[in-house]
Amino acid sequence: MLHTRKLLLPVLLLVAAATGAWGAAAPLSDATVGCIDCHASATPGIVADWKNSRMAKTTVAEALKQDKLARRISVDQVPAQLANVAVGCYECHSLNGDAHKDTFEHNGFNIHTVVSPLDCAVCHAEEVQQYGDNVMSQAYGNLMNNVVHKMLADDINGIPTFDGAHTGMSPHGDDVEAESCLYCHGTVIEVTGTETRETNLGEMSFPKLSGWPNQGVGRINPDGSKGSCSSCHARHQFSITVARQPYTCSECHKGPDVPAYKVYSVSKHGNIFSTHGKEWDFKAVPWTVGEDFSAPTCAVCHVSLLTDGNGNVIAERTHRMNDRQANRLFGVYSTAHPKSADTTVIRNKAGLPLPAELTGEPATEYLIDAAEQERREHRMKQVCLACHSRTWVGNQFVRLQSVIEETNAKTLTATKILATAWEKGAAKGLSFTDGLKVEDSIFNEMIEKMWVEHWLFYANSTRYAAAMGGADYGVFANGRWYMNKNIEEMGDWLAFRLTAIEALHPKK
Amino acid sequence: MLHTRKLLLPVLLLVAAATGAWGAAAPLSDATVGCIDCHASATPGIVADWKNSRMAKTTVAEALKQDKLARRISVDQVPAQLANVAVGCYECHSLNGDAHKDTFEHNGFNIHTVVSPLDCAVCHAEEVQQYGDNVMSQAYGNLMNNVVHKMLADDINGIPTFDGAHTGMSPHGDDVEAESCLYCHGTVIEVTGTETRETNLGEMSFPKLSGWPNQGVGRINPDGSKGSCSSCHARHQFSITVARQPYTCSECHKGPDVPAYKVYSVSKHGNIFSTHGKEWDFKAVPWTVGEDFSAPTCAVCHVSLLTDGNGNVIAERTHRMNDRQANRLFGVYSTAHPKSADTTVIRNKAGLPLPAELTGEPATEYLIDAAEQERREHRMKQVCLACHSRTWVGNQFVRLQSVIEETNAKTLTATKILATAWEKGAAKGLSFTDGLKVEDSIFNEMIEKMWVEHWLFYANSTRYAAAMGGADYGVFANGRWYMNKNIEEMGDWLAFRLTAIEALHPKK
Amino acid sequence: MLHTRKLLLPVLLLVAAATGAWGAAAPLSDATVGCIDCHASATPGIVADWKNSRMAKTTVAEALKQDKLARRISVDQVPAQLANVAVGCYECHSLNGDAHKDTFEHNGFNIHTVVSPLDCAVCHAEEVQQYGDNVMSQAYGNLMNNVVHKMLADDINGIPTFDGAHTGMSPHGDDVEAESCLYCHGTVIEVTGTETRETNLGEMSFPKLSGWPNQGVGRINPDGSKGSCSSCHARHQFSITVARQPYTCSECHKGPDVPAYKVYSVSKHGNIFSTHGKEWDFKAVPWTVGEDFSAPTCAVCHVSLLTDGNGNVIAERTHRMNDRQANRLFGVYSTAHPKSADTTVIRNKAGLPLPAELTGEPATEYLIDAAEQERREHRMKQVCLACHSRTWVGNQFVRLQSVIEETNAKTLTATKILATAWEKGAAKGLSFTDGLKVEDSIFNEMIEKMWVEHWLFYANSTRYAAAMGGADYGVFANGRWYMNKNIEEMGDWLAFRLTAIEALHPKK
Repeated sequence: MLHTRKLLLPVLLLVAAATGAWGAAAPLSDATVGCIDCHASATPGIVADWKNSRMAKTTVAEALKQDKLARRISVDQVPAQLANVAVGCYECHSLNGDAHKDTFEHNGFNIHTVVSPLDCAVCHAEEVQQYGDNVMSQAYGNLMNNVVHKMLADDINGIPTFDGAHTGMSPHGDDVEAESCLYCHGTVIEVTGTETRETNLGEMSFPKLSGWPNQGVGRINPDGSKGSCSSCHARHQFSITVARQPYTCSECHKGPDVPAYKVYSVSKHGNIFSTHGKEWDFKAVPWTVGEDFSAPTCAVCHVSLLTDGNGNVIAERTHRMNDRQANRLFGVYSTAHPKSADTTVIRNKAGLPLPAELTGEPATEYLIDAAEQERREHRMKQVCLACHSRTWVGNQFVRLQSVIEETNAKTLTATKILATAWEKGAAKGLSFTDGLKVEDSIFNEMIEKMWVEHWLFYANSTRYAAAMGGADYGVFANGRWYMNKNIEEMGDWLAFRLTAIEALHPKK
Repeated sequence: MLHTRKLLLPVLLLVAAATGAWGAAAPLSDATVGCIDCHASATPGIVADWKNSRMAKTTVAEALKQDKLARRISVDQVPAQLANVAVGCYECHSLNGDAHKDTFEHNGFNIHTVVSPLDCAVCHAEEVQQYGDNVMSQAYGNLMNNVVHKMLADDINGIPTFDGAHTGMSPHGDDVEAESCLYCHGTVIEVTGTETRETNLGEMSFPKLSGWPNQGVGRINPDGSKGSCSSCHARHQFSITVARQPYTCSECHKGPDVPAYKVYSVSKHGNIFSTHGKEWDFKAVPWTVGEDFSAPTCAVCHVSLLTDGNGNVIAERTHRMNDRQANRLFGVYSTAHPKSADTTVIRNKAGLPLPAELTGEPATEYLIDAAEQERREHRMKQVCLACHSRTWVGNQFVRLQSVIEETNAKTLTATKILATAWEKGAAKGLSFTDGLKVEDSIFNEMIEKMWVEHWLFYANSTRYAAAMGGADYGVFANGRWYMNKNIEEMGDWLAFRLTAIEALHPKK
Repeated sequence: MLHTRKLLLPVLLLVAAATGAWGAAAPLSDATVGCIDCHASATPGIVADWKNSRMAKTTVAEALKQDKLARRISVDQVPAQLANVAVGCYECHSLNGDAHKDTFEHNGFNIHTVVSPLDCAVCHAEEVQQYGDNVMSQAYGNLMNNVVHKMLADDINGIPTFDGAHTGMSPHGDDVEAESCLYCHGTVIEVTGTETRETNLGEMSFPKLSGWPNQGVGRINPDGSKGSCSSCHARHQFSITVARQPYTCSECHKGPDVPAYKVYSVSKHGNIFSTHGKEWDFKAVPWTVGEDFSAPTCAVCHVSLLTDGNGNVIAERTHRMNDRQANRLFGVYSTAHPKSADTTVIRNKAGLPLPAELTGEPATEYLIDAAEQERREHRMKQVCLACHSRTWVGNQFVRLQSVIEETNAKTLTATKILATAWEKGAAKGLSFTDGLKVEDSIFNEMIEKMWVEHWLFYANSTRYAAAMGGADYGVFANGRWYMNKNIEEMGDWLAFRLTAIEALHPKK
């Protein structure tokens, strides 16, 4: 491999130049040439990465000539100055400069550090719009502006204390959050000042940024936009290959809370990908079932434009990740997907910003209806049917529904134990005497934490396993074994605590 | 290895072109042409997958011409109608039709949905026979028809309840089991009726199947056979490459209960596979040590026909997965392997269907004897010796034996604590007063669940780590750390419970 | 990629054949020819592996002709008999024979089984010297000769007992340790005698070795040297490709105690490696950022000689793994790195061989000072800056420092609860009344084990996640969620235990 590349690359380039088949870099704008002049030595990795990207090798005008299905650009035209050059440093880092609070004068140009979805939308408008309808684009607010979710985050990140008898909690700093929940959910990037540094070109000024670096899916950018395309289309290769392989999703979906990648990796699909994926064509647009790949990755089911060998469309491209899913598997209880990507608008009957009551009853008016659920499931099934019979696919979805009901029932039992603990004074959280009242965090005592693990780890894992064929993730690997063990442990904790209260302070 | 392939590929291509030995698709039967006519658009992924398979590219007659060691077919002849066509849709989905309860009339042909090991046996008789001796082929019955194992499954899958003071259990539905234990162990596939659907060819009838889809290793098929070759030889590529890579085994052996894949992946062997495996030849039959691969995968040690560079056989092919293993690492206690693949026949002295007493004493008459253990270990050592010295290999097996004894001793301690809990009334399970009696499930209380984790998770993990070189899986990753911590936790639970009983109901 | 290779391979072969650039094996010494004569059939895997190695294909003399940066040998000359032959069996297995207690007469030659770092140093002197300054080379002693660490090891490996009321501990055998802690830390390999075996060449004698096999990083070799180059440069291919891929490090750094690989695998860097790594050049020396690879592996940040596209050195090669790291993330508390690779010399104020007090205060005199910390961090930042801006890199290190302080604060809380348990007699460990005294193991009771998990699993995981971008490993996957849950669990355990004491033995 070493020898192949080193010896042959020059030969190959000659051939390529002669035939114009590929590899002939597109012309660069003068401004981008200026950037590269310094950055080839200042940040060689970035420049080399970009040189390997498709954006470096073609112009937008050329890209627009492609057949509709094969196009990677969703607008019909772009501003004139972008059309006939490679998409280089300057093209992206100067777009919409006025909207960017991080714009600064840099060697004669107005440059911004953080390229945002609105910048990408100049060429990829549809994708950015779809992504805006994606719950992921709202990941910052959905966590930080939801009182229940924020309470959970604070009980995770806070600094616990001990006074010799009781545990307590003191607050944490901002950096902690950026390396914790917001690593995936996205930080708020703000310009906090300016700093001056000595460089090879003399003294230069740069904006100071808080919340940076971050590539979380719901990042709040200095132009006010939400999200980061580089969450999945990593860095300066903007690689569709990276975005289509499951490793990208694993960055945020491998933990016990959303074990999608773990489940996928032991599924039949994951097995085939792990073995044969290296022979597949991850760059093809459209992506042809059976020819370009022989088993789905995450992108196949959730995102990509799929065709069969005759060019018939099996699934349209979407960047709203739940466009083909009827139910949200993730949650205290699994329900239909929320209507709005901004889930802070939800109020259940108890007044909490949650898509279900504590009893599991869904907050229906905030959730997609049965007709929309069916539309979404139909889209998903079209993908499954490319490789499986109708009987197979139909049964699979019936089973998934059973597992949703099963796990919801098991969560209800856990919730009953917790509510009993609150009622009997063994723990302090919600009180129900005069309507629901939050008396204390519902996430800071041991039995409350057990309850969280019940749905967040075990019920979720079991549901993901049913959705994708994850074997042990529905049993011994954070699945049913742990749900039923957890119920016992919650019951024991409650009994021990009540016994202790009774033993030390017997009722007369 | 790299060089060999590079040098030979062009030569090989010339030879191949000259002889037409491969690449030119084999002739198809008329029936299979008929299938493909519709299914190329109805299920394009399946057809494309099959086209990439060896079965699509050669006839059985051609395959039989190969040298004995290189043959992938273990019969000497096949029915005439199969000999001179590619093994296509019709060839497999019509075989032994009368035996298949799922056979149905489909566009003029009698077709069955579920291809079973008995169908595959028409060409692969030896492999199917070996697999029948494999404990995996009995995985359904070994779980569901063993009262102890079934009790465990029910306590995992059942729906727990809470009445305000005590936890209880209500039963679960069938779908739950299919997505839980039986996902790996295999379901029973039964024809439950017929459904009619509109298709491109007008109205058509199809059998309704319960327990479907499933590819569990002990699946009970509609022809009464057991198992599913596609558990490992995935789907319509029937890929030997998939079967030989460890990802296949990981589908069922990555959880905490049988962490074989996890251990392998951090072993020296797994490390070398992860780095260099992509350069290996996973299709070669026979499989040559050092030339086709430079470190073992699961298949190397458990299944494959191995030769050295001079064509000498190092290990014969076997589909009885424990053919080279003296001891069953998995279990409450590790013992010699059971004689019979159907382990429901076992009775220990206490009358339970388990290969050892609760004290660890093996149920010798149901287990292979020392001579057979030695024969199996000898086969395994021949594989090890291809790359390791006799001193290395000998010491390795001595250590494994030590670890078996160590973990059995630690399990005995856990069992003593549990038995004390039962005796003192702190938990309810077995009673020993008038011989052993099952008074209550032995898997439904917390201390019982801790005991299960002791052997199922921690002792197993420690043993697998010793067998394969799994480092942390014998220490902090579900290994010894957890065994000794668990003993403390069981002891504490028992003490707390007895204290609570004493505090609330002091003995006079 | 596939197409490129297919088209170019024949062209390459012609070029290669013409120039003789590769493939022509180097001449072998007569002695090595003799080894291979038998071992090609005795251990075919070893011989085939070695034939694929660089050492088989070039002579030291040829290797020394390379440009300084491209050289893989760090001496300027070698003994005459080694210069002009391939580095074969005899060359390594006979070096420094007098120093090797495992040297034995073998078919007319003096051979030793265990090739040690001092043997490798004949050609790779600098690397061996650097490795000697690496804490890993001292891994055996740092564990076994540190009373606190040894106490932990004994409580992990020991055989727990139960007398009907209390748990206890009995000692374990040597083999257990070799398959447990010492699997990674390294065993002591000793010659325990001689054994005679029948071979194809008649009866032969071989040394019997205890502690063998083992490839732990701090192995004590029969020549008295420490370490094993084959820990990373696996077996007889001595593959730099293996050493540079993260799977090697995962062998010992994937568990919950040092989850470096787990964190890496879900980081952006790991994602890019998993997708694009198969296209990278893992053999290139020096290793060029952006050209040979586009995201770091473990070796990039910790070991390798890195250059930019113009041949400027970005980082010097080092085999002292913390040469670019200011802080040791691993530990009860994270502190500056110890000065000495042999950490048994450390004494904190309390007299314990630990780099910090139980309160977190660092044992400064044994740790590198701020200036050295800055030098090391500067080296690391040079690597980061190849692909990231100064603002990005600067902020990243500020955040890491915050997380170190955060996790240390959380560990202090856990320590306070444990100390309270000791003081109040709820557990037995250290006593502080007349200066610090070890009254009982500090690792054998449940609350002590919870305390260990606090820093060893959860604080470590959180810090590694902050260092490398590990998302959930700082939250739900053994991160902050578990730290704060653990504090609650420790508090509850202490309260339950004190309640039980009070209930059964009320103070008058």
